Amino acid sequence: MNILITAGGTSEKIDNVRSITNHSTGRLGKLIGESFLSNGHHVTYVTTPQAVRPATEPHLTLIEIETTKELESALLDQFQKQTFDSIIHSMAVSDFTTETTLSEDTFIEKLAATLIKDQALSDLTTLTEALYRSIDEIGQTIQNEKKIPSGTDRLLLFLKKNPKIIAMLREQQPQAVLVGFKLLVGVSKEELIRVGKGILVKNDCDFVLANDLEEINDKQHKGILIDRDGHTQTAETKPEIAQLIVNSVEEKWRDR
Amino acid sequence: MNILITAGGTSEKIDNVRSITNHSTGRLGKLIGESFLSNGHHVTYVTTPQAVRPATEPHLTLIEIETTKELESALLDQFQKQTFDSIIHSMAVSDFTTETTLSEDTFIEKLAATLIKDQALSDLTTLTEALYRSIDEIGQTIQNEKKIPSGTDRLLLFLKKNPKIIAMLREQQPQAVLVGFKLLVGVSKEELIRVGKGILVKNDCDFVLANDLEEINDKQHKGILIDRDGHTQTAETKPEIAQLIVNSVEEKWRDR
Repeated sequence: MNILITAGGTSEKIDNVRSITNHSTGRLGKLIGESFLSNGHHVTYVTTPQAVRPATEPHLTLIEIETTKELESALLDQFQKQTFDSIIHSMAVSDFTTETTLSEDTFIEKLAATLIKDQALSDLTTLTEALYRSIDEIGQTIQNEKKIPSGTDRLLLFLKKNPKIIAMLREQQPQAVLVGFKLLVGVSKEELIRVGKGILVKNDCDFVLANDLEEINDKQHKGILIDRDGHTQTAETKPEIAQLIVNSVEEKWRDR
Repeated sequence: MNILITAGGTSEKIDNVRSITNHSTGRLGKLIGESFLSNGHHVTYVTTPQAVRPATEPHLTLIEIETTKELESALLDQFQKQTFDSIIHSMAVSDFTTETTLSEDTFIEKLAATLIKDQALSDLTTLTEALYRSIDEIGQTIQNEKKIPSGTDRLLLFLKKNPKIIAMLREQQPQAVLVGFKLLVGVSKEELIRVGKGILVKNDCDFVLANDLEEINDKQHKGILIDRDGHTQTAETKPEIAQLIVNSVEEKWRDR
């Protein structure tokens, strides 16, 4: 089979020396990649600079990206060149990217100026509408302040929505066995399965691996693999999750 | 000599899976540490999880921190236990830490409610004061939204000032030969020296290593070492900078 795996975590630049990073060691993605490789499959592996990845070998193509935008471009580029039998989308992708960063002083100065100009102050509805317009304009037109004054006590960072990567995978590669991932924090098993099923249906996945950050540590990594029929299989460690995914994908592919 | 080195880059948590990270590979700090160790000095080396560091050896004490707050605690703890002959503060430290994260909707709802309540809308001064009060209250009292609604197009991240680490080093360790670092982006050599001297005077450093991100790549790392008399020495690579710092610190210590 020809497999695409995404793993690691994207980061979004704030400026030249700072960024917002989604933490992911890439260790689960590495295990999944190694399992597919050792079963003789070809793997295109898209990952991020800090993440671990499978060792170089002839059946492995490595692609490195940093931001969600770069991930989107790299995937669209691959979809032009290759048809994948399966896509395992385990990368932790930023839902939001940076729009601008302002000191509190600059933000309030701009906001007050537009509110006064708009005479937006007569009632709550008018004020609310004026605030949306004003914050929209500030976000879209004001660039990062080159030099934040040293007296600044507070910064406001504007973040705007990134493209939803998982939403475009089925459309781009209708033939692929598609595995999505969902990480939640501190929820019940029922809630985890409910949200995982929602992700599966919404993005037309074949499987979703749902997991909870509070059930992940050095020794264990609990994961629930949900299929289209709502059946679930559970695993207790990263190697078990990797094996579960590889087996399920291979089986699904054979049945097609 | 008994040496303290800070290296790497701090990061500030946004939530369980995201943080704001100051990029620093720690490669220069590692070289400085290795040079001091090979000259027979004791080194306490404070660094961050992603950064490279000198290999373990008997004269090296490694301390790992993530946030600026943790750095402050770790240093104050060390200053209780040890007297340092020199402090090399090369870590890239976040000036700001995360206060709260809100969807645009929640932010505007809270802001509009307080502005209307305050009847703050009569003139620009009253409005500006009300905006400061309101944003201050939102920043300090509203917690991260547990679940950002999926329709949210924009987030606002509030950041507040961190303690200035370099400002407390001289006060805590008056006897130490103190080396500060300043990284700028795309400035002239004159500006780099001017800002570097400002940092030196303000924080009572013995030396400041000033460098420009645009003059740093895989092959070169231009750096200017400024001393109290305003003399400058330049280096072209990380090993040269490390050697310059180690020589200058040793010489300064001998002359005391």
